Amino acid sequence: MDISTVWEKLAWNRGGKILYLVLDGVGGLPDPDKGGTELQVAETPNLDRFAEAASCGQLEIVGPGITPGSGPGHLALFGYDPLQHDIGRGVLSALGSDFDLQPNDIAARVNFATVDDDGRVTDRRAGRIDTETNRRLCDKICDRVRLDDFEGEFFFQTVSEHRAVFVLRGRGLDGRLQDTDPQTTGTTPNPPQPKDENSRQTAKLVQSFLENVREVLADEHPANAILMRGFQRYEPLPSLRDRFGLRGVCIADYPMYRGVSRLLGMDVVPRPGGMKERFEALRSHYSDDYDFYFLHVKHSDSRGEDANFDGKVNVIEEVDRLLPHVTDLDIDTIAITADHSTPAVLGGHSWHPVPLAIRARSARVDNVSRFDEYACASGVLGTRPGTHLMGLALAHAGRLQKFGA
Amino acid sequence: MDISTVWEKLAWNRGGKILYLVLDGVGGLPDPDKGGTELQVAETPNLDRFAEAASCGQLEIVGPGITPGSGPGHLALFGYDPLQHDIGRGVLSALGSDFDLQPNDIAARVNFATVDDDGRVTDRRAGRIDTETNRRLCDKICDRVRLDDFEGEFFFQTVSEHRAVFVLRGRGLDGRLQDTDPQTTGTTPNPPQPKDENSRQTAKLVQSFLENVREVLADEHPANAILMRGFQRYEPLPSLRDRFGLRGVCIADYPMYRGVSRLLGMDVVPRPGGMKERFEALRSHYSDDYDFYFLHVKHSDSRGEDANFDGKVNVIEEVDRLLPHVTDLDIDTIAITADHSTPAVLGGHSWHPVPLAIRARSARVDNVSRFDEYACASGVLGTRPGTHLMGLALAHAGRLQKFGA
Repeated sequence: MDISTVWEKLAWNRGGKILYLVLDGVGGLPDPDKGGTELQVAETPNLDRFAEAASCGQLEIVGPGITPGSGPGHLALFGYDPLQHDIGRGVLSALGSDFDLQPNDIAARVNFATVDDDGRVTDRRAGRIDTETNRRLCDKICDRVRLDDFEGEFFFQTVSEHRAVFVLRGRGLDGRLQDTDPQTTGTTPNPPQPKDENSRQTAKLVQSFLENVREVLADEHPANAILMRGFQRYEPLPSLRDRFGLRGVCIADYPMYRGVSRLLGMDVVPRPGGMKERFEALRSHYSDDYDFYFLHVKHSDSRGEDANFDGKVNVIEEVDRLLPHVTDLDIDTIAITADHSTPAVLGGHSWHPVPLAIRARSARVDNVSRFDEYACASGVLGTRPGTHLMGLALAHAGRLQKFGA
Repeated sequence: MDISTVWEKLAWNRGGKILYLVLDGVGGLPDPDKGGTELQVAETPNLDRFAEAASCGQLEIVGPGITPGSGPGHLALFGYDPLQHDIGRGVLSALGSDFDLQPNDIAARVNFATVDDDGRVTDRRAGRIDTETNRRLCDKICDRVRLDDFEGEFFFQTVSEHRAVFVLRGRGLDGRLQDTDPQTTGTTPNPPQPKDENSRQTAKLVQSFLENVREVLADEHPANAILMRGFQRYEPLPSLRDRFGLRGVCIADYPMYRGVSRLLGMDVVPRPGGMKERFEALRSHYSDDYDFYFLHVKHSDSRGEDANFDGKVNVIEEVDRLLPHVTDLDIDTIAITADHSTPAVLGGHSWHPVPLAIRARSARVDNVSRFDEYACASGVLGTRPGTHLMGLALAHAGRLQKFGA
């Protein structure tokens, strides 16, 4: 049985506020030249003080040996088993770009790309064109492309740099299409193959759209083609409010995290536009309207992906300096953790568990006095699946009733 | 959801080699007279150095309070949930004795036994007759027994001492039969009762076989009867290669472990015939043909079963001396663990978790500096089910892709 369905039954509209501070990819591995993991090397007096007053443990986000993408990682933290909920990148991109996606819309993620005279991809990101050029090209496509015989509408919208989002809205659409992005250069884009009989019609429509786009972009350079991936029909998940009675708000700059939050029915504040601004935005949006605050820090992951150990250490230290902005608020339950590890020594996401610290009046404070992978692993919360966090947070905040008499 | 099905989807044919060194039954309990568990009392500089450079934890092989047999214990380590896969002892015996078992064969494990004039069992092992006598009796049975009306064939083959294996091959056979072995003396063997309607025909056939054998062995002593148990139809499991892309090889002397390995599609090298020889066999079979090496040490379990604490300590120390044979090879990921505990103070298998150490470049090395039950229990891998090991091993060896975007 999925334990989160029990929390649904026990949750009531009472109790304290919850804050998740998610340090994306913050879990690391020791670098022998640096003398420890990124968290161990960083100077983090505030995080350590937080851990000292908290219950600590570690979360194995999706499962043993499983390296989570950011989408599944966050779903787990919010109490949605990522093995049960498969969310396409297209839907997340659309939601994350503040597009007003409607149920049953088909969304795909788009890259502007460069192809040669034979139609072979030479650059999957079209030299990372700037966002202004992207906007101009999107407008051009929206102006000129006509989908005859289609009674619905399409949307083609800038995300940033070479990234855009494509949405089809109409009757009888089906998102089970293969990516057109070949994920490599030197070959032509794939056709949007239908994965089954039901998606044949939608495949035709997308094919016709792509042919139109090819003509529209023929005189452009370097962005003379588009690649699509992650086609999916948008089927909203049951919201945090419906499931756990939580009125949530997301404070994040990056599309993916804004998208996941919208998918779960959270309000999403306008892009704060920086880490300090995000911490400040939490204070300014702190109100009786919300029970659940999700504050997202992206760059711990980005620096890890770049194999930039020192850069990741700097991000962690910056978080540490900003931490009092949120710990000074009278939030009943604060959980600091990550959606997955991104060790700089690996230069990518990994399966290693992430540290967790939960501060609450009702927390069983343990001896852990440092917020890092090893210290937290010896905490009283032990090692547990990522989906456990929501139940623990709800309980610590007094938001779950007793089970049985 | 069975997490191992997720590993199946994420596994690719890339990454490093994996070695499992399984010290059968090595988990123990403290003996107050000895000052610790078998692992604690043993001098194990190499195992300790290994643990020091590894991620450590403990595995609860099948589940809380569950004492695993060796079959289920190994299945769990290989990523097959033993609660889902019930493998009869008969099938394992046949596979383990290098018999060329075919799908749908019915196999049973056989003991030669002694019965008195009234047909009551007086010795379930016929005084542990030697293997030569066993061979002679098997030949005699194969020569003389005729199963009229049966269009298939039977096989009756020596394993060792009093142990043999019985196989029926033909159409419409069903293995759901009760054991004839009463598991006690002073009573007559049970008939091979069918467990349901479908196995009625097979039960008749086995009954007729047993009546034949009674006549053939009437003038023998002490082996004047046979007892059968663990009837089962052989349905091969999906192989390690099909599931996880692992080309595996087993280095083991004992039938059971050779049998489990064959069941999972591993190659099984000829019996090395000793512990040192097994460690050497690993080196000589180390090649690009295999991704997965399973090296089995039996006697840690046997000494535990014999309640021989010092003997078990000696086996552990012998393993320790041989360890450099395998740790010196450039194997990407090495896991040292056990299939269950066999504490000498209990003289049998037990449910207690077993220590685990995983050495790999990507391992989050912890502070554990000793390979024993207590030290490993405080390692970063925590306490987890036995089935987790395969996912962790695959991940550490770089053999699993990222899950989701």
